[in-house]
Amino acid sequence: MADLKSTFLDVYSVLKSDLLQDPSFEFTHESRQWLERMLDYNVRGGKLNRGLSVVDSYKLLKQGQDLTEKETFLSCALGWCIEWLQAYFLVLDDIMDNSVTRRGQPCWFRKPKVGMIAINDGILLRNHIHRILKKHFREMPYYVDLVDLFNEVEFQTACGQMIDLITTFDGEKDLSKYSLQIHRRIVEYKTAYYSFYLPVACALLMAGENLENHTDVKTVLVDMGIYFQVQDDYLDCFADPETLGKIGTDIEDFKCSWLVVKALERCSEEQTKILYENYGKAEPSNVAKVKALYKELDLEGAFMEYEKESYEKLTKLIEAHQSKAIQAVLKSFLAKIYKRQK
Amino acid sequence: MADLKSTFLDVYSVLKSDLLQDPSFEFTHESRQWLERMLDYNVRGGKLNRGLSVVDSYKLLKQGQDLTEKETFLSCALGWCIEWLQAYFLVLDDIMDNSVTRRGQPCWFRKPKVGMIAINDGILLRNHIHRILKKHFREMPYYVDLVDLFNEVEFQTACGQMIDLITTFDGEKDLSKYSLQIHRRIVEYKTAYYSFYLPVACALLMAGENLENHTDVKTVLVDMGIYFQVQDDYLDCFADPETLGKIGTDIEDFKCSWLVVKALERCSEEQTKILYENYGKAEPSNVAKVKALYKELDLEGAFMEYEKESYEKLTKLIEAHQSKAIQAVLKSFLAKIYKRQK
Repeated sequence: MADLKSTFLDVYSVLKSDLLQDPSFEFTHESRQWLERMLDYNVRGGKLNRGLSVVDSYKLLKQGQDLTEKETFLSCALGWCIEWLQAYFLVLDDIMDNSVTRRGQPCWFRKPKVGMIAINDGILLRNHIHRILKKHFREMPYYVDLVDLFNEVEFQTACGQMIDLITTFDGEKDLSKYSLQIHRRIVEYKTAYYSFYLPVACALLMAGENLENHTDVKTVLVDMGIYFQVQDDYLDCFADPETLGKIGTDIEDFKCSWLVVKALERCSEEQTKILYENYGKAEPSNVAKVKALYKELDLEGAFMEYEKESYEKLTKLIEAHQSKAIQAVLKSFLAKIYKRQK
Repeated sequence: MADLKSTFLDVYSVLKSDLLQDPSFEFTHESRQWLERMLDYNVRGGKLNRGLSVVDSYKLLKQGQDLTEKETFLSCALGWCIEWLQAYFLVLDDIMDNSVTRRGQPCWFRKPKVGMIAINDGILLRNHIHRILKKHFREMPYYVDLVDLFNEVEFQTACGQMIDLITTFDGEKDLSKYSLQIHRRIVEYKTAYYSFYLPVACALLMAGENLENHTDVKTVLVDMGIYFQVQDDYLDCFADPETLGKIGTDIEDFKCSWLVVKALERCSEEQTKILYENYGKAEPSNVAKVKALYKELDLEGAFMEYEKESYEKLTKLIEAHQSKAIQAVLKSFLAKIYKRQK
């Protein structure tokens, strides 16, 4: 695994070097420097889970056969395309959310001399995906499906972001807009497709599969992505910040979190009033009142129940799949996230 | 022509209606409303020159044969893809440049309730191009080339924007970074590919041509695009604001305009000092000093000379082309922009 990660990072260096020498543009010295700094800051710094899972999944689909050097390179390159996609979303999301830090350092747009140039940097990150695909996959029989896949998933993510933004920021803060249904829609489109479905879909295409025959795989992965985000929402409030590596601020930020929609479902009239009065305010006393209410409503218990049900449902769906190789891919994803603490 | 424009606008309605019903996303009522308002505000409001020129070019390539209903629809749809691309760039550029108005109304991000959500709206506009291409062109033999073309041109435009942004905003205002060479690079990448090459390339693909056989067409169109932008820079300072429809602010904005790089070429040491002291400042007295210097250096004469030379050079290149149909396409573009006053 340590070895896979170092191979993966070597492929990053190759892809970066290609992009810094791209013949479709005449770089100036300054723009080449800018680009290199921007890539290292935004693309390389993540946990790389999404990217690495393309390689993992492809290996499982090959059922223990060793990958050729070319297959290793190509599956890493597709993994990096997902990391580039993620970097693109994060750079722009941080501007839209007016965030301060990302991965323990200042958000890119907050760096000196960057500012709103970060918007164009986000655009460049997105364009790099297609430069990488064109350079390394143009002659593959699945090239057009790969391009369509990245475009479709990017579109769905942007649509999820749209409902998240207009639900959260449309005029005054109004909790009555929040429901489990809108939460599911935001999470499914904004996170599940690109984080869960996309890595496996890339591996399936590389393995010569037609994605139209695998809508059941998509369903399972999207459900898993929703479960992952519910965990995220839960951990934001209930995890130890030391273990989690950050301090959650969903309550302060008036986020459409699974906890708040679950609370709304369980609240008495009196409790609803408390939630309306305190949710989305930055003062610690308001946050404390919301957290106390969450305890009172036993949202920890509600989450445990949700977690158990999701796990059972997902396991059943996975075991119903006719292909053992695909079962292995899906189980490996589920094992990585079930009962995670961070 | 009036008829073509109304056909073109009818196609917009079809495309918009497709996007508002896109089965890849579950719209909420609010998000569908948001999207419709956003599209009408940003996509439909332009002069539509770039979009209409796809249809014009395709007709010229067909040498007078009537277009079928399907050909008309498809060439209009490709024209709209360019309008969508332009809308995407403008929505984001306006945020980066902190602009106030666009096409005589407030920039989209300045509208109430929009703000930074405009970044995601820009992303959606970009994604719509591929939704349109996939829906209407997926079965065409030239589909993959069309997708690659839009991706390549978007990439080049973003790269042009990158050098423009880092040259203009990198730390202190420093005129010594500006030269004809950097001006040419900014203009070529930021404007010429998408405004001039892209419409003709779309028409060529529809006509069954392989773009690799037409690099000479690309060269002519890119040169024409550069000439067009030099005109733009000239008009920004010397045109009658009444005729132009806006008041130029390149001097105030410290833009890398053709005029300032030409001035730098012609300045004595004394004059260079005046330029350095006054360029990029908002006060009318500073702007007036720059304008007086431009007159003194006879930049009007320099532009007339540049215009004449460009026209002759472009005409020669066009007439050397072996295909009369392609000559007609290129001449029609040149005729539209030669000696324009706005």
